[in-house]
Amino acid sequence: MMKIDINSDLGESFGNYTLGMDAALLSLISSANIACGWHAGDANVMAQTVRDALENNVAIGCHPGFPDLLGFGRRTIQVSPQELKNYVKYQIGALNAFVTSEGGVLKHVKPHGAMYNMAARDEKLAHAIAEAIYEINPEMKLMGLSGSQMITSAQRLGLKTISEVFADRAYLSDGSLVPRSQKGAVIHDREKAIEQVMQMVKTQTVTALSGEKIEIEADSICVHGDNQKAIEFVMGIRKHLIGEGIQIKAV
Amino acid sequence: MMKIDINSDLGESFGNYTLGMDAALLSLISSANIACGWHAGDANVMAQTVRDALENNVAIGCHPGFPDLLGFGRRTIQVSPQELKNYVKYQIGALNAFVTSEGGVLKHVKPHGAMYNMAARDEKLAHAIAEAIYEINPEMKLMGLSGSQMITSAQRLGLKTISEVFADRAYLSDGSLVPRSQKGAVIHDREKAIEQVMQMVKTQTVTALSGEKIEIEADSICVHGDNQKAIEFVMGIRKHLIGEGIQIKAV
Amino acid sequence: MMKIDINSDLGESFGNYTLGMDAALLSLISSANIACGWHAGDANVMAQTVRDALENNVAIGCHPGFPDLLGFGRRTIQVSPQELKNYVKYQIGALNAFVTSEGGVLKHVKPHGAMYNMAARDEKLAHAIAEAIYEINPEMKLMGLSGSQMITSAQRLGLKTISEVFADRAYLSDGSLVPRSQKGAVIHDREKAIEQVMQMVKTQTVTALSGEKIEIEADSICVHGDNQKAIEFVMGIRKHLIGEGIQIKAV
Amino acid sequence: MMKIDINSDLGESFGNYTLGMDAALLSLISSANIACGWHAGDANVMAQTVRDALENNVAIGCHPGFPDLLGFGRRTIQVSPQELKNYVKYQIGALNAFVTSEGGVLKHVKPHGAMYNMAARDEKLAHAIAEAIYEINPEMKLMGLSGSQMITSAQRLGLKTISEVFADRAYLSDGSLVPRSQKGAVIHDREKAIEQVMQMVKTQTVTALSGEKIEIEADSICVHGDNQKAIEFVMGIRKHLIGEGIQIKAV
Repeated sequence: MMKIDINSDLGESFGNYTLGMDAALLSLISSANIACGWHAGDANVMAQTVRDALENNVAIGCHPGFPDLLGFGRRTIQVSPQELKNYVKYQIGALNAFVTSEGGVLKHVKPHGAMYNMAARDEKLAHAIAEAIYEINPEMKLMGLSGSQMITSAQRLGLKTISEVFADRAYLSDGSLVPRSQKGAVIHDREKAIEQVMQMVKTQTVTALSGEKIEIEADSICVHGDNQKAIEFVMGIRKHLIGEGIQIKAV
Repeated sequence: MMKIDINSDLGESFGNYTLGMDAALLSLISSANIACGWHAGDANVMAQTVRDALENNVAIGCHPGFPDLLGFGRRTIQVSPQELKNYVKYQIGALNAFVTSEGGVLKHVKPHGAMYNMAARDEKLAHAIAEAIYEINPEMKLMGLSGSQMITSAQRLGLKTISEVFADRAYLSDGSLVPRSQKGAVIHDREKAIEQVMQMVKTQTVTALSGEKIEIEADSICVHGDNQKAIEFVMGIRKHLIGEGIQIKAV
Repeated sequence: MMKIDINSDLGESFGNYTLGMDAALLSLISSANIACGWHAGDANVMAQTVRDALENNVAIGCHPGFPDLLGFGRRTIQVSPQELKNYVKYQIGALNAFVTSEGGVLKHVKPHGAMYNMAARDEKLAHAIAEAIYEINPEMKLMGLSGSQMITSAQRLGLKTISEVFADRAYLSDGSLVPRSQKGAVIHDREKAIEQVMQMVKTQTVTALSGEKIEIEADSICVHGDNQKAIEFVMGIRKHLIGEGIQIKAV
Repeated sequence: MMKIDINSDLGESFGNYTLGMDAALLSLISSANIACGWHAGDANVMAQTVRDALENNVAIGCHPGFPDLLGFGRRTIQVSPQELKNYVKYQIGALNAFVTSEGGVLKHVKPHGAMYNMAARDEKLAHAIAEAIYEINPEMKLMGLSGSQMITSAQRLGLKTISEVFADRAYLSDGSLVPRSQKGAVIHDREKAIEQVMQMVKTQTVTALSGEKIEIEADSICVHGDNQKAIEFVMGIRKHLIGEGIQIKAV
């Protein structure tokens, strides 16, 4: 039976501020990347999100970000590989405390925002993240952009990886995402986006912006739960996957 | 052979700011309470301090504090027991990531500053801290003020405890510390302070401000490393303990 | 012509987090208390909120809070009067930069959350806030709980004051608010709440929980814009006030 | 009579953390750039530093930085010109509250760390900073790297500028600093550094690393007070300046 993971970023509320439709998402996804209090989330939100994920049988991942709540972790911050390693370890540990004390297991680590984008390209940073994971628990998986340096560095170190793909982002011929600054970067037509998902899951290929069909590793689809429309899109993806007999399941 | 632990708060530097004579202390103490980035410390400082403690065979404890870097965790913050539990879990987990990735073991948890003072008196907060520890690892010990609610609550839950005493603080007849606002609260005479330490360690008693000799549980002596004078005081305590054949060792 | 001010807390969004229906409120109120980046708000939100308030001819006030974004400034933090004075000055200055650079005038200061509650009762803290305002600009007004220590201390120093009252909070016979922990503290019946407003504005009296009619100074009504229901409540208050020929206008 | 300003960054302590020998510096310099609580400093430190500067007749400048206490404002943070403008306005306002309430005048603004380096090269960011200053008070001066984009942008907007030079940094033939990554970037020989200062002040030229003598605008010399050696170096510079009859005075 064909399988695919659906992952989403959760636990991004902070103190008095609420963000994201976590409750709705938890019934639709198979993996949750939980924020750890640096770019979003706080200790109370983490505790609750971990409990909710476990109750919904959703696999739990750590979603470390830069120490920049004001910029939501989306801004590049210059860090040395050693510093980055410490930033990631800290956040894995913090989340792990809530997971293990609920009897769960922390399954994967997916860097957030600028950290994700930087490590997708930079070998030293990618390696630092992989080492952080490996030194805490070599059984934890690295989730990252399919075909990126993060995946390469993690595999080289012996980590299992989860290659994530995007439903609504167009791809270049080399398997990388079309930059958001470029025309056609985002697929606004939902039918087309679902078609792309089905092609990626069923054939492990994607049709690049150039029209070329290229190979792509697709272990997990990244979805968002910002608003009701986004939730409905996830429901649409699920419906199509299930309709084709594909199981939605964490790696 | 008689034994006593000497503990101190370490890893309180933050970013560009340096605090405390950690290197000097590490050769003198047997237990280090390491700050976790909320009231002091940061991920880089934590990583380095953990490595230094392990190299010096100093037992590592977690030193969680309130989220108040500006107030150094010394200001009362109203928290519910549930929130406090989450605050403590978060910090235990964060530090534990560095300890386990270096092959070490996190031995104990000693709350910092206002958290320490509040939990010493408040049963619900003391219980919340004990639960946080217990749910992560029931083998971790709680270090707290000798005779306080923290010790009582931890023991009731089945945790092992480390009762800490102070060399330079005077005691009341009920075993509590003379409040700092009261005359005679601090013992400025170093000879007297060392005498008090020796009495506490050897006889598990202390002579209260009233002159009454009372029983006290003394598992660990709390010392500071703020400056050269403080370091010399710790050296004096060590010399006297070793001179009387008492072993300085983590519990 | 009878006049009354309607004030609300604005600019509480932070970075990626949105809070409050500011746009809707700005067309309904006469005074805005703008958060200054400590308990809520940030520099970008402040700049935008100041511009929006000026465009809507809404009087601008500074809404300083404790340095506790996680607790939204609602948690008591122990501060000395001197520290509090510095906290308030800092936030007045920060907001004032945006106000003056848009050609506006900062009209009042209303402390937020725990700072408001502490200063309502504590003479030293109330005096410290009054001094902070006075030393920056003695023409700025202090907005505070009607009948509270804040109002008393500000007037003693020579500041003009704005006494604020609440539509949906019950009063004790001494003019203070029924504590939230007590039954009947909040008036859930909107008709009754509007009746209370009309009585306060027109007669400068309020009927206490005991049934006793007491005098109260009512310069401004505090309203909230958390959700659509709250906005409709403000519309209801406005309609009644205007219906009785009362002008809604900043003090 | 020939004149020169000596400036230094002050008020960089934070909460429980002390940094810099501010008291010693204040008797040696003519301008102080005071941190505003984002990359360093806090409201209490600002209040005290402002008072100390006024008592020592030292001109007060605002030293705004990025919101990155952990990185001490030394790390590049991606900001739009509009955001940067708001960041700078906020900090100018905050400091100005303390200055005006002490009866002083805020004389200049000198960006800190990464903000300084970014704005030295980037016209849009430089313009944003100049606008922030101009919109608050067109009489405030911009202090920046001599010959940099910051100076150019500020002058184009009509601001008065203070061009700062460095005693211990080598210059390239185009008047820019030799990058720290390059050999010879820092002049370790104190005699040579003082010689360079004297040449810059007296002839408004500097001998570049290439041996070429180039023109340079030198309104202010930047000095540091990190430790006793640094303080002695400042004393040496002062002694030579005064020995040649040059007056040390804010612009």
